[in-house]
Amino acid sequence: MRRSLATVCLSGTLDEKLDAAAAAGFDGVELFEPDVIASPRRPAEVRERLAELGLTLDLYQPFRDFEGVPAPDFARAEAKFDVMAELGAELLLVCSSVSPEAVDDDALAAAQLRELAERAAARGLRIAYEALAWGRHVADYQHAWRIVERADHPALGLCLDSFHILSRGSDPAGIRAIPGGKLFFLQLADAPRMAMDVLQWSRHHRCFPGQGGFDLAGFMEHVRAAGYAGPWSLEVFNDVFRAVDPRRMAVDAMRSLRLLEGELPAAAPLSGYAFAEVAGQGIEPLLEGLGFARTGRHRSKPVQLWEQGAIRLVVNQGDEPRVAAVAVESAEPERSVARAEALLAPVLDRARGPGEADISAVAAPDGTSVFFCGPDAGWVADFAPERPAPDGPLARIDHLALAQPFDAFDEAALFYRAVLALEPGGGEESASPDGLVRSRAFGGGGVRLTLNVPVLPLNGRAQLQHVAFATTDIVTAVRRARAAGVPFLPIPGNYYDDLEARLHVDTAELRALGLLYDRDARGGELLQAFTATRGRVFFELVERRGGYAGHGAANTPIRMAAQREET
Amino acid sequence: MRRSLATVCLSGTLDEKLDAAAAAGFDGVELFEPDVIASPRRPAEVRERLAELGLTLDLYQPFRDFEGVPAPDFARAEAKFDVMAELGAELLLVCSSVSPEAVDDDALAAAQLRELAERAAARGLRIAYEALAWGRHVADYQHAWRIVERADHPALGLCLDSFHILSRGSDPAGIRAIPGGKLFFLQLADAPRMAMDVLQWSRHHRCFPGQGGFDLAGFMEHVRAAGYAGPWSLEVFNDVFRAVDPRRMAVDAMRSLRLLEGELPAAAPLSGYAFAEVAGQGIEPLLEGLGFARTGRHRSKPVQLWEQGAIRLVVNQGDEPRVAAVAVESAEPERSVARAEALLAPVLDRARGPGEADISAVAAPDGTSVFFCGPDAGWVADFAPERPAPDGPLARIDHLALAQPFDAFDEAALFYRAVLALEPGGGEESASPDGLVRSRAFGGGGVRLTLNVPVLPLNGRAQLQHVAFATTDIVTAVRRARAAGVPFLPIPGNYYDDLEARLHVDTAELRALGLLYDRDARGGELLQAFTATRGRVFFELVERRGGYAGHGAANTPIRMAAQREET
Repeated sequence: MRRSLATVCLSGTLDEKLDAAAAAGFDGVELFEPDVIASPRRPAEVRERLAELGLTLDLYQPFRDFEGVPAPDFARAEAKFDVMAELGAELLLVCSSVSPEAVDDDALAAAQLRELAERAAARGLRIAYEALAWGRHVADYQHAWRIVERADHPALGLCLDSFHILSRGSDPAGIRAIPGGKLFFLQLADAPRMAMDVLQWSRHHRCFPGQGGFDLAGFMEHVRAAGYAGPWSLEVFNDVFRAVDPRRMAVDAMRSLRLLEGELPAAAPLSGYAFAEVAGQGIEPLLEGLGFARTGRHRSKPVQLWEQGAIRLVVNQGDEPRVAAVAVESAEPERSVARAEALLAPVLDRARGPGEADISAVAAPDGTSVFFCGPDAGWVADFAPERPAPDGPLARIDHLALAQPFDAFDEAALFYRAVLALEPGGGEESASPDGLVRSRAFGGGGVRLTLNVPVLPLNGRAQLQHVAFATTDIVTAVRRARAAGVPFLPIPGNYYDDLEARLHVDTAELRALGLLYDRDARGGELLQAFTATRGRVFFELVERRGGYAGHGAANTPIRMAAQREET
Repeated sequence: MRRSLATVCLSGTLDEKLDAAAAAGFDGVELFEPDVIASPRRPAEVRERLAELGLTLDLYQPFRDFEGVPAPDFARAEAKFDVMAELGAELLLVCSSVSPEAVDDDALAAAQLRELAERAAARGLRIAYEALAWGRHVADYQHAWRIVERADHPALGLCLDSFHILSRGSDPAGIRAIPGGKLFFLQLADAPRMAMDVLQWSRHHRCFPGQGGFDLAGFMEHVRAAGYAGPWSLEVFNDVFRAVDPRRMAVDAMRSLRLLEGELPAAAPLSGYAFAEVAGQGIEPLLEGLGFARTGRHRSKPVQLWEQGAIRLVVNQGDEPRVAAVAVESAEPERSVARAEALLAPVLDRARGPGEADISAVAAPDGTSVFFCGPDAGWVADFAPERPAPDGPLARIDHLALAQPFDAFDEAALFYRAVLALEPGGGEESASPDGLVRSRAFGGGGVRLTLNVPVLPLNGRAQLQHVAFATTDIVTAVRRARAAGVPFLPIPGNYYDDLEARLHVDTAELRALGLLYDRDARGGELLQAFTATRGRVFFELVERRGGYAGHGAANTPIRMAAQREET
């Protein structure tokens, strides 16, 4: 299968876009006409550059407001054919008219497109006709297909665009009825479900497959069933994507396509976190107070193992405390890494001493290392033991919460979800004192992960990260920790007054211990406590009762405000 | 009239919000309950702080999902009354239920609200009932009023919110029929016209009056006519406003309210630009090549006067070239400054030598100085003359284009529009290589101004500013400038090919001179040329034919891409 990327997806000059597409491994590109027009490269020079980069030119687009109007501008079309000839482009995208002059007349549109196809064919070119979701009279792919069928010209076919089809709620099953040979091109885009004007939705909020709410896997089944044989091409208009490093975005795009194709090593089953690695000085007293003990020192690196029951943490001495690595337990670490690599995750080359375990790791886009450990936990032998793991009130890592820069939401979500094969859970938006923060949760195989991403840059304030530990007795756990001197985040008294008013719960013990509380619709309960923050890191203690599955979203603004007061 | 600000409008902790509201001169605040709940200050301490700052507490809000449900939670209400008593709040906002349990029964809602009002009255409190635009059964202010009327309790009245009323397209004229004494509170918000889900629109895109598309002046006429006597209070939910410095936003809020009230010194008539001040080294050769000459040196400052015909530029030696000041010619400079000051523009204290003109100036939010000069141009005498102004092909300043940070769009637009009393013109969005850029034009009294603001931060790239000069013969002007060695922005050949294809114009001369072309729907034509950039500044030459009134939006992406290639 051939993979293509529309230049409009990326930021930068045309050269930067082409370089990024080639570097990410795309086979070809769709050239977005404004990118060509604004480039100092003449079409023949663009063709040369494409050849140098090994990229094919799969589509030239868009040609607008041609058909269905009283006097179609064939001179404009011929001028574009000239440009295509110089570019070496063979296929032109014609999208359905939005012109107020357009008339609702399929016979007219078909005749005009037939004439256009005839002229294109005379020059060895072809036309792909697409229904824009906001086309004036032609807004549905089945309607566009009826016109193409009626025009009946070998150089005229259909372009399918998943956004235009799925945003309108059209049934994609009808694609199966279209002969594959008449499907000239396929543009893929996902989008979050939004109740807004479809044109604005399309222009600003498209995203790569797997980042939105459309069923693109189901969509592609219909496209495959129809016998489409052309490239899978991404065409995404997104305010953020077109403002960040194009090399990063091209990799993100390719990752989404690989995931959609599904021709990846299957995800190896996970069985929870092997460890979390926390970097930075000053967190040891927190860990000790929470009931952890240092159980080993790495044989060749300045890294310590801390344990409590079955929980393992790796602590190294970094500059500012942060969550440096996420380690999951995989039934087959090698397969996990192979999958990650197929999803364009850079495999980390790790120095190791003689006899030390070879733990495979990849780098996430935000620089966090992701380790895949085998079920035998052989890596523990790399640490010279100091003492056995103490028992304590904390049972396991409940979840990790990783902060991301404001412009990395979709990219990070796709990465973690795809590489770890996690299911997306709920998403929410919470007001922090410095603006809105979006969260999204992912889970599977005993691994829970939440990503916290500010909607806008937070005036240079760092977003915090945390490791949450599950306990079946948070009251005892917090009492012990407080007695051991662990500073907890002060929770305002007003919070408890509100809790009493809203949920009619007794808050005496919650108040005394600084616990936060939430209850879900089915009566499940959550109790949480947060330690004071060190650098960018804090720890959370969580007790879930009655199947409470969330992360206490109602309490998030309270936590963020209290953390702001801390600083 | 009393002015109030809802704490939800601002970023920061509750203390920061209150400080900002007081500093901007608000009389009171609406306390947004989540701000209180998240604060470490207990209600009595909040009350103390308000007293210290001289702020009244005008509304406690919101109390949700109370009425229209089978079993209204009076215990929750009583708990909130306790908090209000401690806060010293007298008025509670109850907004119409969105609960799926709510039933469509006005009699029930009225009875429940009456009971609530009775309980409130027993404690000296009152209830303001508001229809949310997305209320489950009560979504319109007239419906809410029918329920309030039916409940018929002196402690129950209506809260009007301009967003909830105008976003639904309800006719605000009905407000006149409501007795003023039953209008307990007024919340004001503007919003850009958007075709989207009203809840999301409200939560993310509200803005201060004058920044959006609602007719708030007309709305206020109805509210005044009804005899409303309470505070005018701003309640705005905006992703950007809640993420930037609260002191800046509180000033922006107060400015919007002052403008809406209209009790300002009337704007003095303007008659064009007196001068533009450009800072930075290296621009003199450009000016000289464009036909300007240095005609004077300031008697006490390191500043030069450059002229051509009637155009005056002030050039000073700054670090990086930029547009440092905008100077307009006002029929009454003192009145212009008084208006600016009433709109919270800081008046600049300017050192001047003996006998020098006292030109009044204020600072715009972005640091640009705005001067008001009298029609006698007395300020010119501050420059020791060197030679008379040469004649040349450039006739006047056509417009100034000022760049703004991504988070200053609404603030800057309101400032320039209000202080200079300009009419808003069109707005548009253009794709630059580093992301989308929004532009908005303002004009009046011979003064045209455009603001260019990136939608997201542009990876640290500075946005460019420019001064555009009008000419009636751009061909001669550019020929002369080129002959004089002025470097112009190279325009790609592909642009001209597209122009021929689209508009079927002869491009030979345009190509030769690097001119850009546009044509409007009525046949008006625009010709433009851009000099090379120096620092953050470039110059534009503009010829308008046949009443072309725009700024060549179709050419903006071409210019921005070419400027990116320059760097």
